[in-house]
Amino acid sequence: MKRINTSPISGTQELLPAAQATFNKLKNTLSEVYHSHGFLNIETPTIERCEILLAKAGGDTEKQIYKVVKTAESVEEASQALRFDHTVPLARYVVEHEQDLSFPFKVSQIGESFRGERAQKGRFRDFYQCDIDVIGRGQLPIYYDADVISTLLAAFSEFKLGTPVLARINNRKILTGLLEELNISDKSEDIFGIIDHAEKVAPEVTRDALMEIGLGEKTVAKLRAFINLHGDREFVVKNLRGLSIKNETFNAGVDELDLVMEMLEFDELKKQIEADMKIVRGLDYYTGTVFEFILPEYRQIGSVCGGGRYENLTGYFTEQKFPGVGGSIGLTRLFYVLNENNLVKSQEEKTIDYALIPVTDNEIEFAIRMAKDFRNKGESVTVVASDKKLGDKLKYAANIAKRGIVLGEEEIKNGSYEIREFN
Amino acid sequence: MKRINTSPISGTQELLPAAQATFNKLKNTLSEVYHSHGFLNIETPTIERCEILLAKAGGDTEKQIYKVVKTAESVEEASQALRFDHTVPLARYVVEHEQDLSFPFKVSQIGESFRGERAQKGRFRDFYQCDIDVIGRGQLPIYYDADVISTLLAAFSEFKLGTPVLARINNRKILTGLLEELNISDKSEDIFGIIDHAEKVAPEVTRDALMEIGLGEKTVAKLRAFINLHGDREFVVKNLRGLSIKNETFNAGVDELDLVMEMLEFDELKKQIEADMKIVRGLDYYTGTVFEFILPEYRQIGSVCGGGRYENLTGYFTEQKFPGVGGSIGLTRLFYVLNENNLVKSQEEKTIDYALIPVTDNEIEFAIRMAKDFRNKGESVTVVASDKKLGDKLKYAANIAKRGIVLGEEEIKNGSYEIREFN
Repeated sequence: MKRINTSPISGTQELLPAAQATFNKLKNTLSEVYHSHGFLNIETPTIERCEILLAKAGGDTEKQIYKVVKTAESVEEASQALRFDHTVPLARYVVEHEQDLSFPFKVSQIGESFRGERAQKGRFRDFYQCDIDVIGRGQLPIYYDADVISTLLAAFSEFKLGTPVLARINNRKILTGLLEELNISDKSEDIFGIIDHAEKVAPEVTRDALMEIGLGEKTVAKLRAFINLHGDREFVVKNLRGLSIKNETFNAGVDELDLVMEMLEFDELKKQIEADMKIVRGLDYYTGTVFEFILPEYRQIGSVCGGGRYENLTGYFTEQKFPGVGGSIGLTRLFYVLNENNLVKSQEEKTIDYALIPVTDNEIEFAIRMAKDFRNKGESVTVVASDKKLGDKLKYAANIAKRGIVLGEEEIKNGSYEIREFN
Repeated sequence: MKRINTSPISGTQELLPAAQATFNKLKNTLSEVYHSHGFLNIETPTIERCEILLAKAGGDTEKQIYKVVKTAESVEEASQALRFDHTVPLARYVVEHEQDLSFPFKVSQIGESFRGERAQKGRFRDFYQCDIDVIGRGQLPIYYDADVISTLLAAFSEFKLGTPVLARINNRKILTGLLEELNISDKSEDIFGIIDHAEKVAPEVTRDALMEIGLGEKTVAKLRAFINLHGDREFVVKNLRGLSIKNETFNAGVDELDLVMEMLEFDELKKQIEADMKIVRGLDYYTGTVFEFILPEYRQIGSVCGGGRYENLTGYFTEQKFPGVGGSIGLTRLFYVLNENNLVKSQEEKTIDYALIPVTDNEIEFAIRMAKDFRNKGESVTVVASDKKLGDKLKYAANIAKRGIVLGEEEIKNGSYEIREFN
């Protein structure tokens, strides 16, 4: 009967109402947790000028960006595109509205981003990203690194997934300092990349990759031992200090890691955090604290949240310095993998509380008034109006609502009715 | 200091956090009211295939549509575009997921749509549309026309604007039947257009326009008298029946209008509704009930909500019939005009409940623990960490939070603290 392909385009999420309700619940939970931790919500337009989005050109961005054009224009003329993350628009927002904001600016953004990813299972082209950031003007105390991680951990707690979440934390200054100490800073971009990738490949692949960029066997052994270091704060910090490295950057990184984790311990999050030297984050953008969350009982899912400290958010837009720290939950992908692993029960529970079922049109008036009363008490109510048989109406009601009330001549005369629980 | 233009593109909404909080409150109110009236929320992807969006080609749609292209492609190849409303994607959704939905399908959609409108004050290119629709399979009882109007009126009540809202209701069958009776059905498209426009121009302009399409003086006089008919149900229905028109379509329209308004009266909405023959809605898409909401004390704002009954939602996608009734609130424009008329106080009220201000780093641990306690009690809390002087910290706290608590050595030793109310 269909005349046309009506499936949604690939790489997008389209849910039935029950699953949508579950997704919305996660999204609202994020919004509430972000707010309760003092983050102010903003929303930038979905469409941005290309010169903003591509201020930092290169990388995958330029390949993945979706330009938007009016029918008549040509792409070369196209000067606008869809945002691919919230960070670049946030940088623009901060520069644009600086005079009206209070710094540190604790900000949340929950909305869609767009990337022309290859069509692939679990890869989305149109997806929700739910970010928090704290932006300082000139400087930003290290406390906010802990603040961001703590807020994101609180969000995962509120998701009530029934499986623990672990924040793996590191500080990029530590590896940066180590490479300086080992006199191999010139290879740092390669090394950061290889370590970032290390968990996705066999240990020998990482070893070979490090050899291939020209590092000696001893150095490679040192790096491999180093990246295997992980555990609680005291253990990792003790081991790092035990290396007796004099490099200032290295020691600043260890101090910061120590402090951030200590503040998270104040927050009673000791069991949910771990220091881990393997976490370096691919982006050269990060300059200090970096973190990734995993669900340790479902390691195959990979990272479910990530972020870190960046010394200069707005470098492409202004000469003023706005250091920040932030983190992001890719909610569409998260929802997808949670469902794949049965970690959210896609709301068996229906969301409508009552279906009121007038037997004939004569009882519609009564049903309408009753619905109003119920709504005033906070219930979600629908009235089932239909020429169909009562049996059909009841079947429909059971599909959409938790409970049903049949309203016939008798019920109205006697002013009493039976509440049917649907399961 | 800026290196680049950091303003948002024209025709988009970008708000400071306080205004964003007010906007979000309206959006959440809509979401809650829609849910409490039994509408299930769905979200279709922002990007759709062009063949879907342009299934019904022509009109402004094709001119206004934003195509999306990957950098390398040319526009001619572009096969995807941004949705320009929620109705077309809903039609696709219903056809695609028919087997998994229960009909009547009461559905809400709250999300952005995109149109390449001319840049103009109060015209948006990227705007929130907040729709509800009830879709039947094969047929749909007239009750749902009242259901949709009642739900939208409830939403406006919950906005608490402090000014009344009026739903102006009509049924297109009435004018259609009248034109048949007058033997001028061949001019109906023109006439509907002229009447739809009548309120925006002087009465003589409407008269002249009707003359210009070749109607006689008597006919024009009849039509002008007709479109001035408005008032409560009894008055208007009595007057319409008083015309003693035999045309079936006309009388079906009057009956439907009577019924829909009667059901709204059951819902205690008598004071918020009016029958009005001037409301015809431009779109030929509508086939029965049509309505527009205004704020009578602010008529210059124009329509703040509109919708109606359509006999065939999905005609372009399938041969099966899915009649529906729906309504839409253009929230971005509404928020804009409400602000212009001082009808929302852009949340002077700050959204963060407490700012905790440790005097030195020594009190950070205490502040973090206290914040956790407060959050567990449902408060929104931020900790102000900074090397700045206490006075500066207090000033910042007063900017972002309703109340502040200074935590120094004394406060912690004595376990007592003072709550400062910021105004």
